[in-house]
Amino acid sequence: MNVAQIATTRRTCKAFDPTRKIPGSVLDDLKTVLRFAPSSVNSQPWHFVIAGSDAGKEALAATLDGAFAYNAGKVRGASHVVVFCARTALDEAYLNSLLDQEEADGRFATPDARAGQSKSRSFYVGLHRDQLNDADAWADRQIYIALGNLMQAAAALGVDACPMEGIDVLKLDEALGLPQKGLRAVVMCALGYGSEQDFNARLPKSRLPADTVFSEI
Amino acid sequence: MNVAQIATTRRTCKAFDPTRKIPGSVLDDLKTVLRFAPSSVNSQPWHFVIAGSDAGKEALAATLDGAFAYNAGKVRGASHVVVFCARTALDEAYLNSLLDQEEADGRFATPDARAGQSKSRSFYVGLHRDQLNDADAWADRQIYIALGNLMQAAAALGVDACPMEGIDVLKLDEALGLPQKGLRAVVMCALGYGSEQDFNARLPKSRLPADTVFSEI
Repeated sequence: MNVAQIATTRRTCKAFDPTRKIPGSVLDDLKTVLRFAPSSVNSQPWHFVIAGSDAGKEALAATLDGAFAYNAGKVRGASHVVVFCARTALDEAYLNSLLDQEEADGRFATPDARAGQSKSRSFYVGLHRDQLNDADAWADRQIYIALGNLMQAAAALGVDACPMEGIDVLKLDEALGLPQKGLRAVVMCALGYGSEQDFNARLPKSRLPADTVFSEI
Repeated sequence: MNVAQIATTRRTCKAFDPTRKIPGSVLDDLKTVLRFAPSSVNSQPWHFVIAGSDAGKEALAATLDGAFAYNAGKVRGASHVVVFCARTALDEAYLNSLLDQEEADGRFATPDARAGQSKSRSFYVGLHRDQLNDADAWADRQIYIALGNLMQAAAALGVDACPMEGIDVLKLDEALGLPQKGLRAVVMCALGYGSEQDFNARLPKSRLPADTVFSEI
């Protein structure tokens, strides 16, 4: 299938078959997609907690109650659940670690190249932190690029995905000890294989028509 | 190439060959990917302005000056440039149009199914508008799912992409008359084919190591 066919046939999974697990090589590919997702100025302002054990998934499911209780079953039935976390601060030490990694990976032919990258990234980090005052929202947006890539990649690999915004991020922060690690929970995505109870697998997709969502100039 | 290979070989394009245009069938696939991108509660809070004409690209390039002037050349050199716009309000009329579309597309076997979808979507729209006070940021995040999907799809189709946050959204709003259409500019992505001057095509990718970005539970 090409990317357009994947886009039109993919379904958000509403009920997983708990007996089916994602093979290791497929999981490795999905992790590669996450790690290599693009982000503004290569800021990579993320961390991914992947729950593959029953205890790990139970810890996540236990945070889902009240209005979000309906998502707990998806977490328990999935093969793996990814908690997308944001770094709470892109401080100097972190920005230097990015530069060091880029240098180690061979992106800087000259000292000027490193200085240029440092200046450019610091400009955008400062813009969001000090002028637009949306540093957290900026990080969140990058994380949604990774979420989009993961969903699309899962579909290409025959893995069903269920993105979940219906989560309690503060309870997740506490359950996973995220603040102590300089992280905060943003969004979650369950991965696995749909069960017979997945009503959404049998429903057609629906989208607004092309003339509503596109303008050409 | 599978999705992991696409993820590791994709490069953000820094300079386009202005003589090369995206074939119509490929552009159609990219538009399908955009239109079918997933969004929270199928809210589709977006609109995509696609500049394929010289005049259209020039109108976008003219909004880029000051700190963002360095992006104007990418806009002029690209085959097509997508301006990702958010709907400024998800009001009752819009939410009803989503329900009508879903009904027309065959997603509701019973009136209860329509009522359930309406209730679920209204809950999340209200949550972000009235409780979390992040309706705009919520829409932005959905748009970044579409951006992530577009970049990944472009790479799969051999099209080079340059996502651009270095834009002046207010100038874009004005240039495109977006507020009058209930829209606002969020982010931009140029698409086409890299030129010989695209230094980034020859540089290795760099990402933080797996043990930094993943935790397993």
